[in-house]
Amino acid sequence: MTDQSMRLAGPDDDKFHEECGVFGIWNTNDAAALTALGLHALQHRGQEAAGIVSLDEGGIFHAHRGRGLVGDTFSDAKIMASLRGRASVGHNRYATTGETALRNVQPLYADFAFGGFAVAHNGNLTNALALRRSLVNRGCLFQSTTDSEVFIHLIAISLYSTVVDRLIDALRQVQGAYSLVALHDGALIGARDPLGVRPLVLGRLGGTDGVPTSWVLCSETCALDIVGAEFVRDIDAGEIIIIDDKGVHSIKPFGKQADRFCIFEYIYFARPDSVVEGTPVYETRKRIGAELARESGVEADVVVPVPDSGVPAAMGYSVESGIPFELGIIRNHYVGRTFIEPTDQIRNLGVKLKHSANRPMLEGKRVILVDDSIVRGTTSKKIVEMVRAAGAREVHMRISSPPTTHSCYYGIDTPERGKLLAATHDLEGMARIIGVDSLAYISLDGLYRALGKPGRDMAKPAYCDACFTGDYAIPLSDAQANSDQQLSLLRVG
Amino acid sequence: MTDQSMRLAGPDDDKFHEECGVFGIWNTNDAAALTALGLHALQHRGQEAAGIVSLDEGGIFHAHRGRGLVGDTFSDAKIMASLRGRASVGHNRYATTGETALRNVQPLYADFAFGGFAVAHNGNLTNALALRRSLVNRGCLFQSTTDSEVFIHLIAISLYSTVVDRLIDALRQVQGAYSLVALHDGALIGARDPLGVRPLVLGRLGGTDGVPTSWVLCSETCALDIVGAEFVRDIDAGEIIIIDDKGVHSIKPFGKQADRFCIFEYIYFARPDSVVEGTPVYETRKRIGAELARESGVEADVVVPVPDSGVPAAMGYSVESGIPFELGIIRNHYVGRTFIEPTDQIRNLGVKLKHSANRPMLEGKRVILVDDSIVRGTTSKKIVEMVRAAGAREVHMRISSPPTTHSCYYGIDTPERGKLLAATHDLEGMARIIGVDSLAYISLDGLYRALGKPGRDMAKPAYCDACFTGDYAIPLSDAQANSDQQLSLLRVG
Amino acid sequence: MTDQSMRLAGPDDDKFHEECGVFGIWNTNDAAALTALGLHALQHRGQEAAGIVSLDEGGIFHAHRGRGLVGDTFSDAKIMASLRGRASVGHNRYATTGETALRNVQPLYADFAFGGFAVAHNGNLTNALALRRSLVNRGCLFQSTTDSEVFIHLIAISLYSTVVDRLIDALRQVQGAYSLVALHDGALIGARDPLGVRPLVLGRLGGTDGVPTSWVLCSETCALDIVGAEFVRDIDAGEIIIIDDKGVHSIKPFGKQADRFCIFEYIYFARPDSVVEGTPVYETRKRIGAELARESGVEADVVVPVPDSGVPAAMGYSVESGIPFELGIIRNHYVGRTFIEPTDQIRNLGVKLKHSANRPMLEGKRVILVDDSIVRGTTSKKIVEMVRAAGAREVHMRISSPPTTHSCYYGIDTPERGKLLAATHDLEGMARIIGVDSLAYISLDGLYRALGKPGRDMAKPAYCDACFTGDYAIPLSDAQANSDQQLSLLRVG
Amino acid sequence: MTDQSMRLAGPDDDKFHEECGVFGIWNTNDAAALTALGLHALQHRGQEAAGIVSLDEGGIFHAHRGRGLVGDTFSDAKIMASLRGRASVGHNRYATTGETALRNVQPLYADFAFGGFAVAHNGNLTNALALRRSLVNRGCLFQSTTDSEVFIHLIAISLYSTVVDRLIDALRQVQGAYSLVALHDGALIGARDPLGVRPLVLGRLGGTDGVPTSWVLCSETCALDIVGAEFVRDIDAGEIIIIDDKGVHSIKPFGKQADRFCIFEYIYFARPDSVVEGTPVYETRKRIGAELARESGVEADVVVPVPDSGVPAAMGYSVESGIPFELGIIRNHYVGRTFIEPTDQIRNLGVKLKHSANRPMLEGKRVILVDDSIVRGTTSKKIVEMVRAAGAREVHMRISSPPTTHSCYYGIDTPERGKLLAATHDLEGMARIIGVDSLAYISLDGLYRALGKPGRDMAKPAYCDACFTGDYAIPLSDAQANSDQQLSLLRVG
Repeated sequence: MTDQSMRLAGPDDDKFHEECGVFGIWNTNDAAALTALGLHALQHRGQEAAGIVSLDEGGIFHAHRGRGLVGDTFSDAKIMASLRGRASVGHNRYATTGETALRNVQPLYADFAFGGFAVAHNGNLTNALALRRSLVNRGCLFQSTTDSEVFIHLIAISLYSTVVDRLIDALRQVQGAYSLVALHDGALIGARDPLGVRPLVLGRLGGTDGVPTSWVLCSETCALDIVGAEFVRDIDAGEIIIIDDKGVHSIKPFGKQADRFCIFEYIYFARPDSVVEGTPVYETRKRIGAELARESGVEADVVVPVPDSGVPAAMGYSVESGIPFELGIIRNHYVGRTFIEPTDQIRNLGVKLKHSANRPMLEGKRVILVDDSIVRGTTSKKIVEMVRAAGAREVHMRISSPPTTHSCYYGIDTPERGKLLAATHDLEGMARIIGVDSLAYISLDGLYRALGKPGRDMAKPAYCDACFTGDYAIPLSDAQANSDQQLSLLRVG
Repeated sequence: MTDQSMRLAGPDDDKFHEECGVFGIWNTNDAAALTALGLHALQHRGQEAAGIVSLDEGGIFHAHRGRGLVGDTFSDAKIMASLRGRASVGHNRYATTGETALRNVQPLYADFAFGGFAVAHNGNLTNALALRRSLVNRGCLFQSTTDSEVFIHLIAISLYSTVVDRLIDALRQVQGAYSLVALHDGALIGARDPLGVRPLVLGRLGGTDGVPTSWVLCSETCALDIVGAEFVRDIDAGEIIIIDDKGVHSIKPFGKQADRFCIFEYIYFARPDSVVEGTPVYETRKRIGAELARESGVEADVVVPVPDSGVPAAMGYSVESGIPFELGIIRNHYVGRTFIEPTDQIRNLGVKLKHSANRPMLEGKRVILVDDSIVRGTTSKKIVEMVRAAGAREVHMRISSPPTTHSCYYGIDTPERGKLLAATHDLEGMARIIGVDSLAYISLDGLYRALGKPGRDMAKPAYCDACFTGDYAIPLSDAQANSDQQLSLLRVG
Repeated sequence: MTDQSMRLAGPDDDKFHEECGVFGIWNTNDAAALTALGLHALQHRGQEAAGIVSLDEGGIFHAHRGRGLVGDTFSDAKIMASLRGRASVGHNRYATTGETALRNVQPLYADFAFGGFAVAHNGNLTNALALRRSLVNRGCLFQSTTDSEVFIHLIAISLYSTVVDRLIDALRQVQGAYSLVALHDGALIGARDPLGVRPLVLGRLGGTDGVPTSWVLCSETCALDIVGAEFVRDIDAGEIIIIDDKGVHSIKPFGKQADRFCIFEYIYFARPDSVVEGTPVYETRKRIGAELARESGVEADVVVPVPDSGVPAAMGYSVESGIPFELGIIRNHYVGRTFIEPTDQIRNLGVKLKHSANRPMLEGKRVILVDDSIVRGTTSKKIVEMVRAAGAREVHMRISSPPTTHSCYYGIDTPERGKLLAATHDLEGMARIIGVDSLAYISLDGLYRALGKPGRDMAKPAYCDACFTGDYAIPLSDAQANSDQQLSLLRVG
Repeated sequence: MTDQSMRLAGPDDDKFHEECGVFGIWNTNDAAALTALGLHALQHRGQEAAGIVSLDEGGIFHAHRGRGLVGDTFSDAKIMASLRGRASVGHNRYATTGETALRNVQPLYADFAFGGFAVAHNGNLTNALALRRSLVNRGCLFQSTTDSEVFIHLIAISLYSTVVDRLIDALRQVQGAYSLVALHDGALIGARDPLGVRPLVLGRLGGTDGVPTSWVLCSETCALDIVGAEFVRDIDAGEIIIIDDKGVHSIKPFGKQADRFCIFEYIYFARPDSVVEGTPVYETRKRIGAELARESGVEADVVVPVPDSGVPAAMGYSVESGIPFELGIIRNHYVGRTFIEPTDQIRNLGVKLKHSANRPMLEGKRVILVDDSIVRGTTSKKIVEMVRAAGAREVHMRISSPPTTHSCYYGIDTPERGKLLAATHDLEGMARIIGVDSLAYISLDGLYRALGKPGRDMAKPAYCDACFTGDYAIPLSDAQANSDQQLSLLRVG
């Protein structure tokens, strides 16, 4: 889900940002506590806020949502005790720099005529504004500014009688990318959009020694690992999974569709220890680094990753090229939420709160800097300056993704196109702006090769790679409509 | 409005509790600041929470709500500055002892197809549960647990086109007591239920020396005084007032109805300096005290009020009886939100945090204690014990209202009937429990006389006096329906 | 004690302000809880902050201090449980408008070579700066900015061996007004300065039915009442009381001295239900009002108190004069800590957050306003304006104290002399500024008469009345020294 | 400095913990802001609390201290603006698990007879208790429970007249390890104990283009880098540096002493990008890893660091051994302050909030785990379990320090000796407890070789290595005194 009002607030550290992780669990003691752990493992997918809704055995729902890290929000024993029940769903929300009303923090919850219903959404709907407008005209009252709320209203007004039929009815009307976990009194439900853009996996806990079987639905396998669950399988594109006391049921109401999983999950979003769509992320990143070395080798003394995301690709580059891998840049992990408002003097120092140069490793060296992507280029520029100030003789930048020339509309926070450096400059221009002696990106075919494909099949690409190609597989209805028709939003304190 | 989930939480100091004050203002600079002042003057009608929604000249609404006193919630200059605009509505909420979710704090706000709409409600709907059930069946999603939210949904789904027509359409469907102030882009609206149970007055500011005329709608005249507004008139029972840039318009869509204003406003709720329905409250209370002295005189040395609410009646009693008025009980106004959890030892001390005996005024005296009402009797009992412990020779309790034998369903927080001392005991039994030498209440006719009537007209009573008589002029639909059909409410942190 | 750095911050509501209440208890369960109750009863003597230090049976001290009301600071069961022990001392601090560092909140505590020691001080030392300067020169490190800290250092460096001898040694060096309660492992100690300027009383709890006898030392009898203690006697001027497991011991190391109890305690500071130096406060205030009526009668329709402090004097005035007593001004007790920063428009409204006119009682009337004192005159002026705006035909102000022409240096927060209206204007000038038709104060002799004396004995006045007379019985050493020699104080966040 | 009351609270993640970083700056705009940045760069030396004291041009000191990260404490523009002046000192405090009173947060400050004085201390005094006892007997009042406060009192009571002479007088009386930065109106002062156990460096900013020269004293060079200062030199053991408007002055009042710098700074404490005593930390750690591979090679498939501290040594090990380096363990950096209190079920899951296994890199592999040290062994055990659960065939642990068999008394938080795994078990026993197939530590001589020495010179060791050898170069006076003579400390809320 995305918060339309937040879109303008760009990420402060010049990366694409995953928007949300989801987690649901069925049939276990400590459902809420395991959900909190799962959300903690998915914290890289969203740091702004987190929420959990649990369902107790009397059919009553309990909710807690808070801003900040999962651990901080769910550290209070009283809060955890209040989240009673053997089933729950949770959600991590991506950290924008702006204010976020708590009403936008998921899981969303509604009291339907048929009972309570909670849903957590990873992804973004591309016709949410149009749907919202028509629902408001019908008399529906929206309480949040998230696109995800349309799911709730579409389910509420559906004329079908069962929860699953109402959900299918709602999903038929939405366009966009979604991986959902939902909970009602009777079942935990997972759903993935027909192209399977965002990830969703199924896991299993217990089932032996008289321990009852519990089921988990979550964004990545690393969240299975932390709760000790065994990976069962990826949810298929377009699949709806219903988990109830009789077991796991699968339906595919939308027919067979082409799979277009988000290729950027491999490059940056997913955690390195996750296995995504059958492929280990860490090794993939090393293979991309090796391919990059083959495509764009350069003579140098050290391969230095931009930490932390550039590390595996840099390792692959180093092994393939034979040039030593060194931690020439140190990351300071003690950066809190905020920091002093810098004066001009301090701003001119080019202060780097998150990164520092490991001067003895850089001084007099020809340095290959490996990073996963360049968005606006502002951070890259600062890092190159820092590396040069530490005495590097040459700086060669190598990027483990193709140039990001297009915005994402499927659940990733990206700047508008005009602010993407690669959308407005050629390679030489970018190199000049960033201040490097040479700049190279992996090729699109190279990336597909690192993923085990022969290259990109132009007729039937295996992944969603719209941010590199502009090939948007799902229509961008709202974006194409008149952009003036904005929501007038209440500002709430 | 009432919060259904709060009903069980009784008032801790053994009084009936007014549930809410409302205030709206149109066409002035500092609309939000004046609203905050008005709410401050109405603070006695609700101390739990307060909210203000303003409307700026671009048609954008701004809101802030907070728990606690008006002054604390609206003391931040940044918050006040954010509440831009020349019109606003505000609401005070009564302080229960339990937790209250912020989502229940009024004014309620909704984005309708025709624009934003804010409403603040004093009163209680008696068919809110039935309406809610039918709205939920239709697909409406409720976000709060207040009865007041049905107004919003009924307006949203109305097939009429203008705001006022939609509001009338909604009001035709509700039963109960309500004084509303509402705001949309175009008008400030006030409405009072057909029996006029809860108060609502109109005032005017400016209009001379080139200062534009501003209009105020609020619960009591004391809120006009604080903003320097002149009293214009009471809103009539069943009247809807629309204030826009052309002036003040009145419509009465429900026809002529009998007026049944809440008689308890005179006894306890209204502030003594307010003029309610044409009658000054302070003088009325003194007249009630005098009538009480005439009806139930007793030989004694001092007349002592239970402060603060018993003071005017005690003064009237003293003047009429010629027995000296003395402040034999001192009230400590420095009681914060909370206090130490008492140990048994301390509980046995019968500690009185709010009241203390002025021993030299009580020692050896025959004391007439004057209070406005007895609810459960627990506080009265403690006060009598304290007065006796201070050495009083005799204690005679005189109450400036008839026995409160029935619960209120029209916007006043009262215990269920079984917990009302007067509902379950005769006068003698009550005197024994409270520990007094004699106990007397004013008669119902005596009360009407003090209000300038010849007595209670049984056929056509001039006031709502259901708490004394059980004569409920508005049907109690929800209460009469199966009480099992409770809302299953999400508990939200 | 006073906080030197706070002196400049004047009281915002134009009254003299008592600076602190003290409470100590020996030999009881729930010592800390009873201390919290006692401080609550003394809350009128200081609302800024409160602290309690307890002593457990292992000789370990426990402390908690906080800003705000006693009830708020000591409402947490965990905090109360941490204040273990059968003895404790507590302190209320007066609310200035400025910031106060927690390090200034009493009781002060120190680890001496002979063990822990806690002390709470009501009063003000007049040679604290000189003592501090000399102690600092000796190598003593001060941690607070209160005058009271000199007690601690003087005790620490004393060459005597017992605690009591060290305390006497310290008291011999200080000048000023003090009522102290102190606690060390072995005794609760009380002390009053040689002139007995500030109050201190002794009470007793238990002692029957096998309940052990507990002893209480506190500022006023109202704090005995709340804990159910019986009043034993006032501590004498210059007396030191030592309470230990063997009982109560009294020593008078300073010889016999003239008693000069603060006369203003009767007029305003003490709670009306306290009995101060043998005299009930409430009745005294009524007698002062009656004396005032005799001295300065005027024809009028109503006697109206400025609430709450003017009420008893107004009652006395009314009874003596036969003019009816009416609550023509209503006080709003729901004023929180803060309120909106007023805009100019609102400031011009002359908004009265604490008082409102009871218009029907004032309209067309000749009004006698009774108040206890006039300090700067700013509040009086506003109240008179309000009363006139409500329609009063005449306004006569009667003050139940003589003109306050001098600052207090003995523990009361007063403006510097130049800001006292009565110090710079004659009666006529004051009446003009305040805007009344007539103004009269009680005479000094009249005040003494109301206190049961034949008048003021010029040779040997019975009370400290320096604020009316400038007759300062204790030398003002610091004030007379060069006022430039200020402390340079660290500002601490 | 250490907080004696905190000693019992062990580190929760089974590492030795540096206790504090210090920073001081002289003669610059933005002194406080640059100090905040410097403390941020030194955040790894203490995360519990931070403080800054600045000195403005009028000789007034300003202070702010807070718990938590530097960035959080000093993010408020109002706070930063209040820290006026061109000189300041700051301090980071190590994060214990227990409560810490704010009064213990440094820099300490005192108002001396000669003016204000602030001091920040890294290290620990070994005769602080004895000194404190004697100072208290003299009448000195301690306000904190830190050993560092004795500096302040010794200076206050010194009979010398200049600040520097008083400081030398104080330093002559203390035993232990200290690197100090102090500030008074006239100079910034640095001091290092006679053995130079804890680090302190001098840097310079500006001095060209008309920008005035500023001087910095701080714990590590990484804090020079962040403010753009140039490294000048290490402060010598036993040296006192006085920086005033005339420049930098050095005195060595204690004569020539053997240098015994803390060897553990190289192994773990210092940041990898710092240059410590002339040696780059990161390269040293790689050299230690290589030496470890030479000493204790083993056949395996992968070298896996325990992140983050084991990374450089693992890289050195990998290069030397030719076994591939892989990130087989992923660290989650989103761990907040707190987390859910685990239930038994969750505890049994062996949940790892900070580390997760990168399963595809470990499955079926023979793994060499490289870590910097083993303290209690509890974390090592969990990590080995996690690695085995991920499918590792063999696990060999290699430690880049000698066995830590002794506690540190010189400013590092270590468990008491009995809790150090290596103090109570031989290698085989440790391997069994931790659950590895083999365990090896680097030898003491090997460590010295990696630091460029021929080995440890038994007669004159180049470093303080007491934690490996028990060779305590500074007497442990307090520890050897009767351990019963504890401070009785006031617990303050």
